[in-house]
Amino acid sequence: MQLYVERGFEQTTVAEIAKRAGLTARTFFRHFADKREVLFAGSADLQANLVRALGEAAPDAASPMRAVSAALDAAATALGQHREHSRQRQSVINANADLRERELIKLASLAAALADGLRRHGVPEPDASLAAETGIVVLRIAFERWVGEPHAADLPQIMRETLDSLKTVTSAR
Amino acid sequence: MQLYVERGFEQTTVAEIAKRAGLTARTFFRHFADKREVLFAGSADLQANLVRALGEAAPDAASPMRAVSAALDAAATALGQHREHSRQRQSVINANADLRERELIKLASLAAALADGLRRHGVPEPDASLAAETGIVVLRIAFERWVGEPHAADLPQIMRETLDSLKTVTSAR
Repeated sequence: MQLYVERGFEQTTVAEIAKRAGLTARTFFRHFADKREVLFAGSADLQANLVRALGEAAPDAASPMRAVSAALDAAATALGQHREHSRQRQSVINANADLRERELIKLASLAAALADGLRRHGVPEPDASLAAETGIVVLRIAFERWVGEPHAADLPQIMRETLDSLKTVTSAR
Repeated sequence: MQLYVERGFEQTTVAEIAKRAGLTARTFFRHFADKREVLFAGSADLQANLVRALGEAAPDAASPMRAVSAALDAAATALGQHREHSRQRQSVINANADLRERELIKLASLAAALADGLRRHGVPEPDASLAAETGIVVLRIAFERWVGEPHAADLPQIMRETLDSLKTVTSAR
């Protein structure tokens, strides 16, 4: 990723990335479908992490947001370790339309996995999708605040504050 | 769009679409960037419609969801006119990964436009983004229910029910 920061995403070739990582281009493509995927290598782990924490919180039909909130807390603890790395990664993504699209797809996939986890625990529709998708909205907005504000609190705390803001915003008439 | 339904999106060429519409390929590309855009021709109008209704509802910082809800109501009235056409269009989109991506991008653009409208009316962050993005989640889920359920109520009513479900889901502890 350091190469993307130094030269810009468009100007960096797969050959250069592979060389910096001590790999051949062939080995690179065994690990990543394309050079965009390098930036999203953590998203499978993040998804597994979210779904595991959701399951451990034992979602129920009466309060699916409680389990989503536990999943977000686990994700925030894992994601919130390396702020400078996260900040650099996000600035590379924000500067490139293709990367922003890839990010939208990854977020949609996280939401679908959470909704699926809720349904498997008996949460009916549309509640399962609503809880999962608003949860991912909170994750994205909290993450953006965390990387964007120089003196931001830690990510789990911002996540909880954002979840509280969501409750206030959606409950107002 | 009828060609996409008859032959599938991948199998339909721009030349065939243009011929059916009585256009040359050159004229086609003056109106649409690519053949995916044909399916999203209405999204600029939808966005203008949402933003106009949001402004007319005069959003305020204390209850941004009230204005978002008015915007969704206007959108639902406009979108809810042609159920069979909407159903066919959605089945073409759902069958193709590129089209699903394009749809995610259009939805993100709607959310960004709503958030921008709220901020211009003095709604602070993160409330503006939370209200806008959860509003678009409600729009997408309500639309999916409306096209997917054979005996569904009309779209404005499903939109209001989905918004009520959102409030219940996010307020539960």
